[in-house]
Amino acid sequence: MRGAIIHAPGDIRVEDRDKPVVEQPTDAVIKVAAACVCGSDLHPYRGTEPVDGATPIGHEYVGVVEEIGEDVKNIKVGDFVIGSFMASDNTCEICRAGYQSKCVHVEFVGANGAQAEYLRVPLADGTLVATPGQPDQDLIPSLLAASDVLGTGCFGAVAAEAGPGKTVAVVGDGAVGLLAILAAKQLGAERIIAMSRHESRQRLALEFGATDIVEERGAEGVAKVKELTNGLGAHSVIEAVGTKESMMQAIGSTRPGGHVAYVGVQHDAQLPAGELFFAEVHLLGGPAPVRRFLPELIDLIWNRTIDPGKVFDLTLPLEDAAEGYRAMDERRAIKVLLAP
Amino acid sequence: MRGAIIHAPGDIRVEDRDKPVVEQPTDAVIKVAAACVCGSDLHPYRGTEPVDGATPIGHEYVGVVEEIGEDVKNIKVGDFVIGSFMASDNTCEICRAGYQSKCVHVEFVGANGAQAEYLRVPLADGTLVATPGQPDQDLIPSLLAASDVLGTGCFGAVAAEAGPGKTVAVVGDGAVGLLAILAAKQLGAERIIAMSRHESRQRLALEFGATDIVEERGAEGVAKVKELTNGLGAHSVIEAVGTKESMMQAIGSTRPGGHVAYVGVQHDAQLPAGELFFAEVHLLGGPAPVRRFLPELIDLIWNRTIDPGKVFDLTLPLEDAAEGYRAMDERRAIKVLLAP
Repeated sequence: MRGAIIHAPGDIRVEDRDKPVVEQPTDAVIKVAAACVCGSDLHPYRGTEPVDGATPIGHEYVGVVEEIGEDVKNIKVGDFVIGSFMASDNTCEICRAGYQSKCVHVEFVGANGAQAEYLRVPLADGTLVATPGQPDQDLIPSLLAASDVLGTGCFGAVAAEAGPGKTVAVVGDGAVGLLAILAAKQLGAERIIAMSRHESRQRLALEFGATDIVEERGAEGVAKVKELTNGLGAHSVIEAVGTKESMMQAIGSTRPGGHVAYVGVQHDAQLPAGELFFAEVHLLGGPAPVRRFLPELIDLIWNRTIDPGKVFDLTLPLEDAAEGYRAMDERRAIKVLLAP
Repeated sequence: MRGAIIHAPGDIRVEDRDKPVVEQPTDAVIKVAAACVCGSDLHPYRGTEPVDGATPIGHEYVGVVEEIGEDVKNIKVGDFVIGSFMASDNTCEICRAGYQSKCVHVEFVGANGAQAEYLRVPLADGTLVATPGQPDQDLIPSLLAASDVLGTGCFGAVAAEAGPGKTVAVVGDGAVGLLAILAAKQLGAERIIAMSRHESRQRLALEFGATDIVEERGAEGVAKVKELTNGLGAHSVIEAVGTKESMMQAIGSTRPGGHVAYVGVQHDAQLPAGELFFAEVHLLGGPAPVRRFLPELIDLIWNRTIDPGKVFDLTLPLEDAAEGYRAMDERRAIKVLLAP
């Protein structure tokens, strides 16, 4: 089969790979209907995360079950399924508390490379959720979004306690930030401030439910959010970038006692404990437990209540994965769908 | 009147000071019945916080109202009162949300120096709470504890979401850590792990409700807490020290999705954002909004349900404040009560 391999920063190639097979009785192998390039894939692509030799890449996927291990009970061959980038048993104490991305048996599905024709998914019963039937073609981008960026945006909005009567600010206008806006809107947030300086992304932010746009960043961005909130700051702030600057912008934009969710992947940043202490805001971040939200998100997509697939503004054949990475890296595309 | 002044690190003197008067119509002046030395007072005492010339010190107090400004309605001359170290209007949006320590009109009461015979308390209506009557002498230490260390321990337990069915770990065995144990017990926590290596403090921890003692620190302490919790970590962890080491010990001891409250005053520590991200725990810290808890705490003390005054293991006349600081600094005393 064909699959994307990262050889070194900036070097993505689609090559022949062995077609995956069921290795564990809890595995499933799916025929990938669509995959995509994630903002977090840009870390190794840009060299801000090491690349350890030729490595299969991609961790967002939807597809049709091709083969299942003998212990798999919840899904069957032929099902159209969506799963999180983190495989989870969905039965341990951590999963039951809603933190499937930290399951005691967690595995990173992306290690198997989802930007490919086929994908082996561990812990299939706990990881994959089947749609009610075979989806219409136009629903596939939205279902694919649920696999990571929508689920992550949703975790951000829930962790930031967005809801009725709340003012929510979103730092970051990538796919996750934009879908956090959609999720906050779904949760009933009264006012949603999108922090964005890119016209096309601002448009999508407004379409997804943003009520205000703040173009300023850093201290100026914080001042602007305070100006919009009687000097207090937003109740709920979602950080969807993953740098020290974006974290401090998010914390500064939050009122005392408010909630900051940080879903941008954090790397080497060091955060000043004193500023965190005196800001006195709730903080919750980490790899999103997407599995928690999948049933509800699939339902909302299936009923065409939400259309998160709009974040895909470039669709390419899998063979052109390298161009997809370039387009994301240069911010020519918000998010790139790869069709095997 | 007599009052403690810090002149430089290590240099506390009790001297003649002007008796405070009502300056604002919202002020009250109280005759201090008891004050005490706080762990946070040791920061300037040890030179880990700058001392800007001769400065009145102390921010924990109980006493009798001596004089009130013309706008004060909720308390009257002669009332026995307790207040937080942070003055708050208790009416603004932030106060109403329960974060009085970040009130839009907040003032640090300690700037007026509570280790003294008299103290001016700003925003008296929002800051002070009167007891049902004049307290018996033996209740005074417990009421004084409510002014900071008990209120802070209580905030820690609430912010860490201690409660029925929860395993709680407490990092730090100073007065705040010990009273966080008492508060977690009051909230119905199932199991309370005290992280302490001092025999006298362990004894008090057990008396306040701890079920387990862990003497190890750092990575070894984390491993021990995990061993006691099926490898998962505690649901709720209260950090009551205020260093990078204690913060990382607290975060490491918490299960994914669990809650860390950090109430030790943080200074120059830098926290690794990546470790925070991948730990995926809730974090909330800051100066405790003691005012939120005062009515309930006074009630519990008045009815002799709790006896937080046990943290005072040394009582000295105000004149001997310098010895009180020495005893705290050398960890000869858990907490020192100063009687004017």
